[in-house]
Amino acid sequence: METRLSSRRNDITGTSGLSPGYIQANLLILPSKYSKDFLDLCHRNPVSCPLLAFTSKGDPHTVTPSTCIKNADFDLRTDCPKYRIYEHGKHIDTLTDLLSHWTDDHVGFLIGCSFSFEDALVSAGLQPRHQVTRTVVAMYRTKVPLMPAGIFTGATCVVSMRPYKLQDVERVRDVCRPYLAAHGEPIDWGWSALERLGISSVEKPDFGDAQVFEEGEVPVFWACGVTPQLAVEAAGNKIDGLVFAHEPGHMLVTDFTVEDLESLGRPVYN
Amino acid sequence: METRLSSRRNDITGTSGLSPGYIQANLLILPSKYSKDFLDLCHRNPVSCPLLAFTSKGDPHTVTPSTCIKNADFDLRTDCPKYRIYEHGKHIDTLTDLLSHWTDDHVGFLIGCSFSFEDALVSAGLQPRHQVTRTVVAMYRTKVPLMPAGIFTGATCVVSMRPYKLQDVERVRDVCRPYLAAHGEPIDWGWSALERLGISSVEKPDFGDAQVFEEGEVPVFWACGVTPQLAVEAAGNKIDGLVFAHEPGHMLVTDFTVEDLESLGRPVYN
Repeated sequence: METRLSSRRNDITGTSGLSPGYIQANLLILPSKYSKDFLDLCHRNPVSCPLLAFTSKGDPHTVTPSTCIKNADFDLRTDCPKYRIYEHGKHIDTLTDLLSHWTDDHVGFLIGCSFSFEDALVSAGLQPRHQVTRTVVAMYRTKVPLMPAGIFTGATCVVSMRPYKLQDVERVRDVCRPYLAAHGEPIDWGWSALERLGISSVEKPDFGDAQVFEEGEVPVFWACGVTPQLAVEAAGNKIDGLVFAHEPGHMLVTDFTVEDLESLGRPVYN
Repeated sequence: METRLSSRRNDITGTSGLSPGYIQANLLILPSKYSKDFLDLCHRNPVSCPLLAFTSKGDPHTVTPSTCIKNADFDLRTDCPKYRIYEHGKHIDTLTDLLSHWTDDHVGFLIGCSFSFEDALVSAGLQPRHQVTRTVVAMYRTKVPLMPAGIFTGATCVVSMRPYKLQDVERVRDVCRPYLAAHGEPIDWGWSALERLGISSVEKPDFGDAQVFEEGEVPVFWACGVTPQLAVEAAGNKIDGLVFAHEPGHMLVTDFTVEDLESLGRPVYN
C-alpha cells in the first residue's frame, strides 16, 4: 500500500483523497490495562466508535483481522503520517512517528471513519457541501451521552454535520445505512435536532469549519470518529502512561475496501 | 426445558424466578420487511437492545444460533406465557399464544434482559432493592436518543433504576460489566443523573414501582429491555401488519446459561 509507505517516509502531509476506494481509519493506542475498557466502549457505542481492527499487545506489526493490513512489514508506529500524544487526557505533542514513545505494553485500535459514506453520497449525486467549498466538515460536541465503560465515563458524542434539502434526507439515510462500520445513517436531522443534541449554534462548530446552507436545507448530523479522543480527554487523570492517536485528517489507510465495509460492523452469530 | 413447556400449556402466569441460571429473553416479532431495520436498530443500540438470537422468516421453530433454543419441537408462537399484540405502534391485545395471528412473513428477535446481572449482584452481596421489597423494578423514559435505523426514528431509551450507596457503585459496575448481552454496566448514576437523563422525579417511574432509598443511597440507572417496544410505538403508522412482543414479566426462557453470557454480545473478529 503506497500511501502507508509514503506516510512512513513522511512524504505526505495528509491522507484526504489518497488511496480512493480504501478505508481510512481513526487510530487510538493505549496502555494494555485500559484496552479491555476501550474495547467495551467500542462495543457499547458502535455508531460513534465502530471498531475495525486492533493490534496485539506491544506488537506494532500484527493487526486482527489480518485482512485489514496486508503488508508484512507494517509498522503502526510509523505508517500513519502524524500522531497525537496524550498525557492524563491532554494533547501534549504531535509527532511524525511513535518510535521513541512506544512501549511493549501498548495496544492499538483502528476505528471506522466517514470517508467511505462520503464516497457513496457523491456517487448518489448527494455531494457533501464541504467537498464543494473545500472546507473541513463542521463538527460539534453534543449532550448525547456515550454509554460508559470502565474508566471511560462522563463523555458525550461528537457529531459531524452536512446540509441537505429536507426532501433528500430519506435518500441520504438510505445511502449511508449499509456502512455500519463507518458511522452508518445520520443520528438526527432538521433544525429541531439542534436542541435535542444540545448544539447552541450551527454557525459555531467546535471543530472544522462552519458550513453554508442553501435555501430549504436543514442540518443532518452523523456520529463522528473524534468521539474516542474526547473519551480519552474525559478519562483524564484516570489514565497513567501515554496515549497516542492520529492527527485529525492524517489517517491510517487500511487494505479494507469500500466493498468490505457492508459486512464490517455486523456481529457474527454462530 | 420445562418452563417453556409449562408456558406452552399456559400452566404458569409469569417467569420471574423460574429456571434459575438460564437466560430469559425479551421478544419482538415483526413482518419481514421491517426485520432489516430492526436488526440495524439492535446493532446500533446494543446496550438497550442486545440481540441474542432471531428466527427464520415465517418459521417459528428455528432459532439462530441454535444453542439458544435446543428442543426440536420449539414453537415461538406458544412457548412464551403471554404475548402483546401491537397494531400501528399501539398495544391492542394480550394473548396466551400467537397461533391465530402468526403469518408466514413474521420474523422473531430475542433480546437480552437484566435478569442475569441481578443474579450476579445477589451473589456479590448487592441484592437489588426491588427483590427485597418484592416490588417491580422502577423504569423511566429518558431523553437519551436511540440511534435511529430505517423506520425506527424518534425513540428514546428506557432505563431501569436500583438504589445503591455511592461507595458501592464501582463494585456494582464491575459486577455487571461482563454481561454486555444483558445491558452490561449502568449507563449513569448519582442524583445529578436525573437531569442528564431527563427524568423529572425519581418517585414517579413510568413503568414498575417507585423504590425506597435508604440513607446515603443514590439512583443507579441501566438501559432497559422495554426500549424495543417503545421503538415500535415511536414507529407508529409506519408499520403495516401486526407486531408481537412478550408481555412484560412473561419472558421466553432460553437454553443460554449465565456462563454463556460473558461471550454473548461481543462481536467476533475473523
